[in-house]
Amino acid sequence: MTVTAEDMAKDMKEISVAEFFEKNRHLLGYENPAKALLTVVKEAVDNSLDATCSAGIVPEIFISVKQTAPDRFKVMVEDNGPGVVKVKVPFAFAKFLFGSKFHKLRQSRGIFGIGIHGAVLYSQLTTGKGVKVTTSTGGKDLEVFDLMMDIGRNEPHVVSHQTLKNQDGWHGVKIEMEIEGSYIERHQSIIEYLKQTAMSNPYAEITFDGPTQKVKFKRTTNKIPKPPQEIKPHPYGIELGILRRMLISTKSKNIVSFLKTDFSRVGKKSAEEICRLARIEVKQDPKILNAEESERMHKAIQMVRLIAPPTNCISPMTEDLIIQGLKKELDAEFFVATTRPPTVYRGYPFQLEVGMAFGGNLDLDKPCHLYRFANKVPLLYNQGGCVITSAVKEVDWRRYGLRQSKGGPPIGPLAVLVHFASVWIPFTSEGKQAIANYPEIIKEIKLALQDTGRKIAQFVRKKRKIRERQIKKQLFERYIPEVAAALEKLTEKNKEKISSMLEEMVKSKTGVEELERSEEKA
Amino acid sequence: MTVTAEDMAKDMKEISVAEFFEKNRHLLGYENPAKALLTVVKEAVDNSLDATCSAGIVPEIFISVKQTAPDRFKVMVEDNGPGVVKVKVPFAFAKFLFGSKFHKLRQSRGIFGIGIHGAVLYSQLTTGKGVKVTTSTGGKDLEVFDLMMDIGRNEPHVVSHQTLKNQDGWHGVKIEMEIEGSYIERHQSIIEYLKQTAMSNPYAEITFDGPTQKVKFKRTTNKIPKPPQEIKPHPYGIELGILRRMLISTKSKNIVSFLKTDFSRVGKKSAEEICRLARIEVKQDPKILNAEESERMHKAIQMVRLIAPPTNCISPMTEDLIIQGLKKELDAEFFVATTRPPTVYRGYPFQLEVGMAFGGNLDLDKPCHLYRFANKVPLLYNQGGCVITSAVKEVDWRRYGLRQSKGGPPIGPLAVLVHFASVWIPFTSEGKQAIANYPEIIKEIKLALQDTGRKIAQFVRKKRKIRERQIKKQLFERYIPEVAAALEKLTEKNKEKISSMLEEMVKSKTGVEELERSEEKA
Repeated sequence: MTVTAEDMAKDMKEISVAEFFEKNRHLLGYENPAKALLTVVKEAVDNSLDATCSAGIVPEIFISVKQTAPDRFKVMVEDNGPGVVKVKVPFAFAKFLFGSKFHKLRQSRGIFGIGIHGAVLYSQLTTGKGVKVTTSTGGKDLEVFDLMMDIGRNEPHVVSHQTLKNQDGWHGVKIEMEIEGSYIERHQSIIEYLKQTAMSNPYAEITFDGPTQKVKFKRTTNKIPKPPQEIKPHPYGIELGILRRMLISTKSKNIVSFLKTDFSRVGKKSAEEICRLARIEVKQDPKILNAEESERMHKAIQMVRLIAPPTNCISPMTEDLIIQGLKKELDAEFFVATTRPPTVYRGYPFQLEVGMAFGGNLDLDKPCHLYRFANKVPLLYNQGGCVITSAVKEVDWRRYGLRQSKGGPPIGPLAVLVHFASVWIPFTSEGKQAIANYPEIIKEIKLALQDTGRKIAQFVRKKRKIRERQIKKQLFERYIPEVAAALEKLTEKNKEKISSMLEEMVKSKTGVEELERSEEKA
Repeated sequence: MTVTAEDMAKDMKEISVAEFFEKNRHLLGYENPAKALLTVVKEAVDNSLDATCSAGIVPEIFISVKQTAPDRFKVMVEDNGPGVVKVKVPFAFAKFLFGSKFHKLRQSRGIFGIGIHGAVLYSQLTTGKGVKVTTSTGGKDLEVFDLMMDIGRNEPHVVSHQTLKNQDGWHGVKIEMEIEGSYIERHQSIIEYLKQTAMSNPYAEITFDGPTQKVKFKRTTNKIPKPPQEIKPHPYGIELGILRRMLISTKSKNIVSFLKTDFSRVGKKSAEEICRLARIEVKQDPKILNAEESERMHKAIQMVRLIAPPTNCISPMTEDLIIQGLKKELDAEFFVATTRPPTVYRGYPFQLEVGMAFGGNLDLDKPCHLYRFANKVPLLYNQGGCVITSAVKEVDWRRYGLRQSKGGPPIGPLAVLVHFASVWIPFTSEGKQAIANYPEIIKEIKLALQDTGRKIAQFVRKKRKIRERQIKKQLFERYIPEVAAALEKLTEKNKEKISSMLEEMVKSKTGVEELERSEEKA
């Protein structure tokens, strides 16, 4: 029974995005029960943080996870955000590839229009139940929806909808669903995710009412950072295909104004320079640029010197906060952090931050502990597939006084935190747990690691020197009694006196105390 | 400037799948130039192998990759498959989520309706050019298309179409495009991909006309395997949500016939047993089952004993072929392979095969070399994120006489090949380079590794015993002259005679030769 071209033609048809993700639920982070439970919580909390922060509201998030059967959990996440407008609720929760963040170049936690929809799909898939969404924008009405997803068509199915009276001007979103899952408390767990989320969002108050305990992550500041600004693409690294789509859809009437208004960091002079290099009239209508002209322009753009993207489109964790976060988590001796200036891949501005903790109680003989963050969201899974991990392995850590086996991570009492912030995070899958290996990105991560590595190198070396001198000192001290006894016989002086003299000598010659003192001052 | 619910509502809109992948081209394998070039070739070749094999045609594939600029390549892939029917060509190449393989449970290399479309998108994105598709189903007509993609709408855009005269009854597909890329010849390269593809598809004749050399991978057999059969889902592991969708859309009039015809491996007796356990009338109309009843049925299904899925839905590489392939590649001493019986995850049948090579020229002190295959397609990227790698690390290799550091791969002169065959491969991303970590899958891979591990264990131990005895023998031999000299003085007998007697003794006692002989026989 073989297949002909006609047979194949009959079988060819469209695939709905929802069907696609139903069959590929692992793409969204639902391949095993423990990860599934974490993913549901994470998608809801990331959305809540995005909504509150962009509305300038200090976030207050309540999460409840309760077991209903050996492999089932009820999950509820409630925030105090601006809420969702009634007519958009079914789409915002039960239609894939629908969202407000995809078409904007603005830093946010969610971007795909896929995350919370995946949770809704997973709930329906594993328990056959829809989700309940309660929301208000702060007015008189409280909207309550029971939603399911029409998977074959990728459209929302509103099972029921009620408008109730809103009490006390509440605003926000509360989402409830029942899913198959498994609850763990160590490593890649909800608790760990929330702990790290609190570290990177210290202005958020997060309460977790879990199956075994209630944990409150208190805010340590009331100041939420300024919402990052929306931005136009930076011309560096932008693809020819994107440039051509922009040329066709621009509102600008001539090339110079197109370059100035549709991109960031292109002034009149640079725009004219681009036209000159590309041999294009400055007044030409961008819409009628032919293939060759747009290709010349594409090349010219990369040749002109432009300033780096503005920093207000990116919201870094900041060096202080990184050090503060690491100090809260780790019992180390030395903490440093670096925030690099923003740079660009594919026209998207991004910024790297690295924090390091060294010494103290950290394990002497293990590979460094790695914390990964993307737009302030902790990444707990797929460490092996993440460009951050590759970058850590590619840096030559021996230059900073650390041990390292070939192609491996640094070994020693070190913890490394890397925060990748961007208007567009290139996640390796829709599950958003690892960052893709674009050449510009791995290069920048390595630079950030090296900058920070240099900062700890001095400390690492000093620590090593102290250790070496201490060993030397101990060696001398061990022989002092014997030497003293021998000297007593020889000089007929008091043994104790000789002993203490020798001890003094050892101290001053090895200089251990001095080194330790200078370290305390640092 | 903060955002209200109304602002957000205004920004909410649909995202086209093509736009989604344009922004996320790394999901498809296009995050760097070298990987991009490999991915384009791979998507086209995988499609060609699928088309030829399912049409019962012995595959003949011609690939040309030629450099046109420092960072640009023209890629052409031509096959002798059944061709594509004219009206379907634009959709089959330039509309995402359109294909013939997604809705079938049948083993194939491609499945998503995304692969070759991604190559078309990438070409358009990086060089602004469309693709040229030439195809014929073997009749009088030859169809030639120039295609681009309307990204905002995810629809094909036919730039030009011509029907020419087909010469000599040719049938097949020829695709040509120009892309940005970088050509490498080592490790994760086109050459390596083709070498491994030839290993797993020995009936395919593949010619590669590359930028620096022309390589021909000759077929070693003319026999193509029987095309795997399409199959109904197996009831084990199927999700409640899928079951409910099946209940609603079935053509069966009663539950027993639904279970018998819409699933594989459910007979009348098992179907009745499921109804009894679920307390559902055997004659009930499946369409009107309520939520509770379908949940009871879902539970009952998992409690009934059913036979494993049939093997004809899966096309394994076979043990012989695996060993043959490894022998061609590696200079080792001992080769074994295991094909496990098929089993099920989420209702999808799958089958594991493992091959191992040991000893010889393989590196003594390095982690084992790992070859990964999914439905006969070699996986070259994302090894760290693949469940096969996790399974290899989780097996206790010391039980089979190998060294292993905690949580690491086995160390020693070992190569491991793992082939995962299934009617549905759960890839970790659309780029199809790694398999997701479903609990049933990692369990089965570990079993296959252990089965094969036991087969090499005897050999590994014998090798070690030989080595130990050899060391012992060398030690003895070193002292023979001295001992002989001493004995000569003592016994006044000839030193040479004593020496050769001692040598004889050492040989027979340590038994090295005997062990070596028995090994040769094995």
